[in-house]
Amino acid sequence: MSTENYKNFAGSNSQYVSQFGDKGALALPPAKKVSTITCMDARIDPAAALGIEEGDAHVIRNAVLHSKEALRSVIISQQLLGTREIAVIHHSDCGMLTFTTPQLQDKLKVAYPSAAKEIETIEFHPFPQLEESVKDDVQFLRNHPLVIKESVITGWVYEVETGKVKQIV
Amino acid sequence: MSTENYKNFAGSNSQYVSQFGDKGALALPPAKKVSTITCMDARIDPAAALGIEEGDAHVIRNAVLHSKEALRSVIISQQLLGTREIAVIHHSDCGMLTFTTPQLQDKLKVAYPSAAKEIETIEFHPFPQLEESVKDDVQFLRNHPLVIKESVITGWVYEVETGKVKQIV
Repeated sequence: MSTENYKNFAGSNSQYVSQFGDKGALALPPAKKVSTITCMDARIDPAAALGIEEGDAHVIRNAVLHSKEALRSVIISQQLLGTREIAVIHHSDCGMLTFTTPQLQDKLKVAYPSAAKEIETIEFHPFPQLEESVKDDVQFLRNHPLVIKESVITGWVYEVETGKVKQIV
Repeated sequence: MSTENYKNFAGSNSQYVSQFGDKGALALPPAKKVSTITCMDARIDPAAALGIEEGDAHVIRNAVLHSKEALRSVIISQQLLGTREIAVIHHSDCGMLTFTTPQLQDKLKVAYPSAAKEIETIEFHPFPQLEESVKDDVQFLRNHPLVIKESVITGWVYEVETGKVKQIV
């Protein structure tokens, strides 16, 4: 991919299509009944790092891995598509360890003074401590009244330096 | 992976680690300055389907691809990590085409009568028409005051039946 990468999607995609095989017959519900929640970080490829094949698992990703934001997706995953396991995967060297919400709000207000009011309504959810965040997110999901009680919920750290995952909870 | 898949993450991951090479030196900001927004659907592997390598692009995923929910991630991606291109990728055969928010709320209220009040506050954001949703999401991002004006924003449909992507906008 080069700048304006979308122009290159076509080339990479035609290669993928030529090796697509019988994946067109995969069912909508995840075969492994699992959903994963991870950060959007560019260095993480959950499918490659964890051995997730097409059709296996829901993959939910947002900046910092914000579990409350992921909740709508988790409920849909469990209630409509039958998943019963959730893997929460934070990672080392997260950009979110480096700023606070007021810092980012101030930066945005300088760039977009006319949108100051909207900027103040956005909580960016950085986090100060990595393993604590994993435990907090697992706890949040285990205690949430709309997450199925029998779910197996685990928490992990992915090391961007080595590619290793380590189970925390 | 079998049931209780997390037990198998270790095995798949050790294979990945053994082929990790020099990826530990990748920079935090995405090398291709692009963020992608896609559904959590288990059948989609954005890295494989679009040729996204580790380090290239932010990957944001949630149920149905809800662009308003993705906005916090997009702002962080652009303001803190320098991305300037956004690819919005909806897909065929989406589970979200099959229900309405009141239907899912009713199902949940039967299962969790004591959480009825919380259930009524959740909007699940299904969508009725695929290509329209792509156009709406691209328009939403192009018009949003906190999305950088010079961003290149494109909209796509991924066909789960064939593995093909088609550009809509």
